[in-house]
Amino acid sequence: MKHIPVATKKRIEIIDVTSEINGMLRKLGIVRGICYLFVPHTTSGLTINENADPAVKQDILETLERIAPANRDYNHKEGNADAHIKSSMIGVTLSLFVENSRLVLGTWQSVFFCEFDGPRTRSLLLEVTPYER
Amino acid sequence: MKHIPVATKKRIEIIDVTSEINGMLRKLGIVRGICYLFVPHTTSGLTINENADPAVKQDILETLERIAPANRDYNHKEGNADAHIKSSMIGVTLSLFVENSRLVLGTWQSVFFCEFDGPRTRSLLLEVTPYER
Amino acid sequence: MKHIPVATKKRIEIIDVTSEINGMLRKLGIVRGICYLFVPHTTSGLTINENADPAVKQDILETLERIAPANRDYNHKEGNADAHIKSSMIGVTLSLFVENSRLVLGTWQSVFFCEFDGPRTRSLLLEVTPYER
Repeated sequence: MKHIPVATKKRIEIIDVTSEINGMLRKLGIVRGICYLFVPHTTSGLTINENADPAVKQDILETLERIAPANRDYNHKEGNADAHIKSSMIGVTLSLFVENSRLVLGTWQSVFFCEFDGPRTRSLLLEVTPYER
Repeated sequence: MKHIPVATKKRIEIIDVTSEINGMLRKLGIVRGICYLFVPHTTSGLTINENADPAVKQDILETLERIAPANRDYNHKEGNADAHIKSSMIGVTLSLFVENSRLVLGTWQSVFFCEFDGPRTRSLLLEVTPYER
Repeated sequence: MKHIPVATKKRIEIIDVTSEINGMLRKLGIVRGICYLFVPHTTSGLTINENADPAVKQDILETLERIAPANRDYNHKEGNADAHIKSSMIGVTLSLFVENSRLVLGTWQSVFFCEFDGPRTRSLLLEVTPYER
């Protein structure tokens, strides 16, 4: 199991972590296989979406804010109930394919780390089932 | 890694792809193992739900339309911001079990390809970790 | 493939199943590997979130109820359309890491079974790719 640190700078933001993951796959010498990603935090998440226009990330965050506004009167009183909810809506695990020592992704796809209660230093955990080294 | 083509016919629709996946598993000769599914597109997704009453699919799509209406004024100006958001809400990866050369699914479950910006010719990618051939 | 029974007591509730999963991993003698979880039902789901304050679970359920209220006039007329929608919003699969015969989870994380149409006796299915026994 490998650990990729992610330093977030805002309370809520989406950060492209694709190149960090591909760098780790090269370092591990995995040519082909399955790459599992996991976020060990309860107020962040992982998603895959378009990396070309940053407005897409903003639209995702604004929609999550409509679903779980930061300022709603929640039962959880630590001021980050919205972040916990957003985490469960987006999810914290991904299983992706590796070919040619890189994640298999569509032309416009990137893996996005989603921060919902930053800024913090976060961890992204990576494990692989190698088919070819 | 295998590729299953999915031809969608509407802008927004949910298509049962279970038999196509099971056909590919038989073709690959996988008796038991893990089947990973991945959609390499940023405006579609994958979910598992009831296949008996088509109204369930309609209710899922109508709820996603309430969350991210097609006609909202988004930051992304290509006319498909809602489709990107819906993709992140539903997700693009699944890890499922294979037994007796078929996906392990509950009585009423099917694997659904979710089109949010069609009609298009889409790809569903499939990889397996075989336990028994 | 192993089966963990989950007895739910309310129509809608979130139940921590982490210790049941860890018990099964010990029983199977898996020291390190990947653990796949799957819910073979169309009106329940799986998520990972904070286990310390039960209010977090309540906030997740209340937000899902805003997204898909039980009493909305849905197309599916069996009285559980909201439960099907919630299932697709939360998801029914997880791929997690195992180290030292336990799931790798953050300090505050637990695996939660989400019941959206109980009370019922439910199944949680578990499969593993072992790296070390």
